[in-house]
Amino acid sequence: MRIRAFAPQDWAQVWPIISEVVRAQDTFAYDPAMSADEAYATWVEVPSGRTVVAVDGTRVHGTAKMGPNRPGPGSHVSTASFMVAADARGRGVGTALCRDALDWARRQGYAGMQFNAVVETNRAAVEVYLREGFTVIGTVPGAFRHPTRGRVGLHVMYHEF
Amino acid sequence: MRIRAFAPQDWAQVWPIISEVVRAQDTFAYDPAMSADEAYATWVEVPSGRTVVAVDGTRVHGTAKMGPNRPGPGSHVSTASFMVAADARGRGVGTALCRDALDWARRQGYAGMQFNAVVETNRAAVEVYLREGFTVIGTVPGAFRHPTRGRVGLHVMYHEF
Repeated sequence: MRIRAFAPQDWAQVWPIISEVVRAQDTFAYDPAMSADEAYATWVEVPSGRTVVAVDGTRVHGTAKMGPNRPGPGSHVSTASFMVAADARGRGVGTALCRDALDWARRQGYAGMQFNAVVETNRAAVEVYLREGFTVIGTVPGAFRHPTRGRVGLHVMYHEF
Repeated sequence: MRIRAFAPQDWAQVWPIISEVVRAQDTFAYDPAMSADEAYATWVEVPSGRTVVAVDGTRVHGTAKMGPNRPGPGSHVSTASFMVAADARGRGVGTALCRDALDWARRQGYAGMQFNAVVETNRAAVEVYLREGFTVIGTVPGAFRHPTRGRVGLHVMYHEF
């Protein structure tokens, strides 16, 4: 499996992953009714941001987007988001995407990477981020409505470079 | 002084306040080169959000915007932003705007209000928020480049209703 830059022809495989993740409503605070056009505008970054795919041959197993977390006086801190296809989970795709994003952000000269809203019950993601060097800055209690667990917290996580 | 809904004719007084605040680069992680059109799109909310002005007669002293902090499973938590004209500070305009936003968010049925990026050296704002019931969930170290103090922290603050 390798990580490479998103190309327009990847969209046919990326959109089903986004659609599946967003409709599950258990990991992303995105509008579950988001259209393909809205998803494209949200997910496919223009420079100075970047969108990538994790591929095995011609098959896309996951995707990530990254860029500055805030404009202006906050633009030295990066952020990133990751989605992995349901049938590709537990095989290191998220870890590979996270490491690639961190490498990219370091090369771009960012001072660190911040995640603004990590659902606390998303254990697989939280464990990857902790292992890759992030810490939990704080948790906003009940800020995410989980479909089966009710109101759960959203972690703010940060990795200083 | 009273708080009322923003009307298009207020823009002639609101834009100079936004421009002054954003160019100072000491309280908002906005692009300091933001145009009037970009500022209008950023600041003037459409429903379910709301934008207000603090007025004394015909004079606008400050402005606020508010709405859901995140879409989808995060839309039960509100957020708000406040700007006060430099020559109107220290007279309770920020407190009045903050109370109005909290009242509105409660009436709308939100579960709480979150601020995502409060510059830790903006003591006047932090003190108002603490007094009005917010707590600091955590502080992202060095996430804001202050023009005279270097890299300072950004507080995530939350007020559960």
